[in-house]
Amino acid sequence: MIGRLNHVAIAVPDLAQAMAQYENALGASVGAPEDLPEHGVTVVFIELPNTKIELLFPLGADSPIAGFLEKNPSGGIHHICYEVHSIKDAVAQLVDSGARVLGGGMPKIGAHGNPVVFLHPKDFQGSLIELEEVPHS
Amino acid sequence: MIGRLNHVAIAVPDLAQAMAQYENALGASVGAPEDLPEHGVTVVFIELPNTKIELLFPLGADSPIAGFLEKNPSGGIHHICYEVHSIKDAVAQLVDSGARVLGGGMPKIGAHGNPVVFLHPKDFQGSLIELEEVPHS
Repeated sequence: MIGRLNHVAIAVPDLAQAMAQYENALGASVGAPEDLPEHGVTVVFIELPNTKIELLFPLGADSPIAGFLEKNPSGGIHHICYEVHSIKDAVAQLVDSGARVLGGGMPKIGAHGNPVVFLHPKDFQGSLIELEEVPHS
Repeated sequence: MIGRLNHVAIAVPDLAQAMAQYENALGASVGAPEDLPEHGVTVVFIELPNTKIELLFPLGADSPIAGFLEKNPSGGIHHICYEVHSIKDAVAQLVDSGARVLGGGMPKIGAHGNPVVFLHPKDFQGSLIELEEVPHS
């Protein structure tokens, strides 16, 4: 079912510092910050040859990553995102297998404009997994 | 400097369960467990079209992931690994930039038989980064 690793998301407490570290110390190609108010985050994409890293910084009072940064003040790897061909089919297969899909299994529109769901970390070895519908995947 | 994302490593407290979840719930192609006594882990590779996931399970009394699993009993994303063309050049650039390379910057031979170093998580937004020398990267 799962296809490509779409991205690894890293929550950061200092966006400018994180961008500088990836650009200068790691020599990566770092994009410009984009505010996504409907998602409560500012994102920066780091393009690698085979996938991308997303730096996430809280935006607004109800950012979904605020709690994570409270627990991990230095930041940390927040989630990994796998591509699926069909979110609907993926959710059906997950529910059949007994895994918990957050938000009642109803997809939302993610940061790239595609439908996404998140899976319960307790069912996946403590790691938060996002599934993103990428029809050509 | 950094090239491909070589892998994302996930430390797991129950290897059989993690393998079953990736195979059945996520429909992924899950390899067979390999014991790497010199690294203190049993690894399972999950091949994705563009990169791979490594499940890590402690092996032996001094496993380097034992402490992580004590702090994160459900498991969690342990590190991400970027490919570099030359470990020696990468370490020199990192030291120049003021970032800390663990183990005094001396590469070890990693799980894939290539030289690797790990970077101090405090210099990289709380995320543990492995660099692996892959000459064709």
